Amino acid sequence: MDGALRIVVLGGDGFCGWPTALHLSAAGHDVTIVDNFARRAAEVELRAESLTPIQPLATRVAAWREVSGRAIDVHEIDVAHDFEALLALLADERPDAIVHFAEQRAAPYSMKSSRHKRYTVDNNVNATHNLLAALVEAELDAHVVHLGTMGVYGYGTAGVTIPEGYLRVRMDADDGTEVEQEILFPPSPGSVYHLTKTQDQLLFAFYNKNDEIRVTDLHQGIVWGTQTAETKLDDRLINRFDYDGDYGTVLNRFLMQAAIGHPLTVHGTGGQTRAFIHIQDTVRCIRLALENPPQRGERVRIFNQMTEVHRLRDLAGIVQELTGAEIEYVDNPRKEAFENELAVDNQRLLDLGLSPTTLADDLMREVAEIAERFKHRCDRSKIPARSRWVREAEPDMRAERTGRTQAAPAPAGLGSRGHDG
Amino acid sequence: MDGALRIVVLGGDGFCGWPTALHLSAAGHDVTIVDNFARRAAEVELRAESLTPIQPLATRVAAWREVSGRAIDVHEIDVAHDFEALLALLADERPDAIVHFAEQRAAPYSMKSSRHKRYTVDNNVNATHNLLAALVEAELDAHVVHLGTMGVYGYGTAGVTIPEGYLRVRMDADDGTEVEQEILFPPSPGSVYHLTKTQDQLLFAFYNKNDEIRVTDLHQGIVWGTQTAETKLDDRLINRFDYDGDYGTVLNRFLMQAAIGHPLTVHGTGGQTRAFIHIQDTVRCIRLALENPPQRGERVRIFNQMTEVHRLRDLAGIVQELTGAEIEYVDNPRKEAFENELAVDNQRLLDLGLSPTTLADDLMREVAEIAERFKHRCDRSKIPARSRWVREAEPDMRAERTGRTQAAPAPAGLGSRGHDG
Repeated sequence: MDGALRIVVLGGDGFCGWPTALHLSAAGHDVTIVDNFARRAAEVELRAESLTPIQPLATRVAAWREVSGRAIDVHEIDVAHDFEALLALLADERPDAIVHFAEQRAAPYSMKSSRHKRYTVDNNVNATHNLLAALVEAELDAHVVHLGTMGVYGYGTAGVTIPEGYLRVRMDADDGTEVEQEILFPPSPGSVYHLTKTQDQLLFAFYNKNDEIRVTDLHQGIVWGTQTAETKLDDRLINRFDYDGDYGTVLNRFLMQAAIGHPLTVHGTGGQTRAFIHIQDTVRCIRLALENPPQRGERVRIFNQMTEVHRLRDLAGIVQELTGAEIEYVDNPRKEAFENELAVDNQRLLDLGLSPTTLADDLMREVAEIAERFKHRCDRSKIPARSRWVREAEPDMRAERTGRTQAAPAPAGLGSRGHDG
Repeated sequence: MDGALRIVVLGGDGFCGWPTALHLSAAGHDVTIVDNFARRAAEVELRAESLTPIQPLATRVAAWREVSGRAIDVHEIDVAHDFEALLALLADERPDAIVHFAEQRAAPYSMKSSRHKRYTVDNNVNATHNLLAALVEAELDAHVVHLGTMGVYGYGTAGVTIPEGYLRVRMDADDGTEVEQEILFPPSPGSVYHLTKTQDQLLFAFYNKNDEIRVTDLHQGIVWGTQTAETKLDDRLINRFDYDGDYGTVLNRFLMQAAIGHPLTVHGTGGQTRAFIHIQDTVRCIRLALENPPQRGERVRIFNQMTEVHRLRDLAGIVQELTGAEIEYVDNPRKEAFENELAVDNQRLLDLGLSPTTLADDLMREVAEIAERFKHRCDRSKIPARSRWVREAEPDMRAERTGRTQAAPAPAGLGSRGHDG
């Protein structure tokens, strides 16, 4: 292919990373996957497997070679803690671009305990920083495409459409005139996980300014769906499907709950409004970002990688209509606004040629079918979200931790709590 | 003493930490020092000792007991990497407040190499996060007083006085009206070190919002001076004085250079305008912050801990007038604006009772005397700032690193470069 890029995908074995690697390979790019299998280790830790039977990475890559005739190279590297291995790989391969998914990506997981909080901060900040420091060290002008999150913005600015990363603001100068500046959108992260993505933004801004590192930061909405054109080609290529309280995202969880006859668990009032994107569009957006890189010296590019906005209770209503499932309103484990409005600008990806996949399409039915097909693999005990944003909600755990006899009964309904993605 | 606080000083063996610990102890507070002696290890690494002969911490603390009759407890803990030890200490001591100096604090050191960059990010972000996670884990409502830096603001907003942390801005709403919000001042860090302090701000904001952790973040100007009322009481209590290119701050470096007959090395045009504070005022400000804690639920307090603003070439002029030293303009190793204006609001510390010590006082002469007294301990080869913000300025090092024979001569004047703090 003309214009084929050498691309390293950090975290290329994960939920977004794997279909991205395949999509880029199918498009003719030369793909290398780096992963430390942290997500598979978390499966073991949580005793919560992907609903779909995903294959070991070696099997996946061999199957892809069979199906497509294309090779994908694999390196096992802990990007956050093995700088020398990362540097050696980059210095050796000298890729044109690096897609950076090598971060712990679940908000509830990041809030489970102080250990999970610390793991998330340590892993995510060091992974991003190691990559940037390695690019400087290797004198490599590679384009970094990073998966950020819509969660960096928070949901607090009613009446203002969220721009693509930078916000034009006015302030009073000392002489009484008004000064206008374009600033990074003021962050308001809702979990330790989201917090790390706001810290990443500061890393990118600095290395972009100081070392002219070229970066596209994709602030992604909540991903739904599981399969893409490539992962459907062979059962051994199947993508992961998380339905558990830590890693499952809200729409996939609803569809899974419907498949097994479990009520759709809506947190709080369900008035939370969030941005969404289908996994097929995720991989398309990443390819668009890669094939349209910024120039050297250009400021960090920020795209809002989402295609539509829904209120959670409306989303539950749509799934109810499709499947006949019941809806159950449960306590919200998160500390967040009960209700919010959300408007998001995603013009830059549309301008690059993204044609959005929306809920109205047949893809929602396809997800329901996947859930139906693999529902025998579901462990219902993993459905509730057990992470709590603040301690006060865990009387039973407090008793355990301090060694006191459990005095208070577990709060009613704990067993049926879900989470919002 | 009535109102005596139990205070843990993280990094209590350092340049600001040690005099702070003594000042708080002298004021009747019950002080515990935590340190991992990273600053002393960096002395060995850099072969650049404090100009003043500082004593081991055990000797310092024993001397303080002799002089004052007051005990200071000491714990050796790596706050960034030994969470369990930190948690055990906090759970055991249950302090009222924690002063957090446990961070790598030199901008040039943070830019020396990718190893130094990575050490700074890993140490500083994890230290701050471990502290916050430990407070949540220990269910301890202690007041965190953190040493931030004026460098989080950058120096880019001409004509707007830097407020104390939060900036009032206006933006356009979708309906054509204007929305006003108070936001964290848009960060613009000038080095990896400063970057970590902007990442700290995000950690504080999140834990303050989610867990109601009480925080005062003191954005400090460039510290000058070396002795305080307490460190002067006995030679064994003497504070450190850094003059080397990595850890020395600009005014102390000028005074030291003057003492040994070295020209005052001004970077670039010397048009950089910076905020300053004397070490005596540093310790007073920290005490004021501790004795006036925020309420539970109050937003992170941000004070600008500085007392005056000077342009670097004017500062060199003042030292020249005092000492008769020559001024030499050298290449600037940093990537920063040649010239900037700076106006800073420090009303909140003035309101709490700070009475600023300024350059006009006798303290500058006192620093010159310290430099004179210990100039026999000076290693002139450590004076130049050898860190470079970007690679292009290091032709000799590039040759070394890639194993090529050194082709280009070392750039003229390299041996006489200083740095600006």
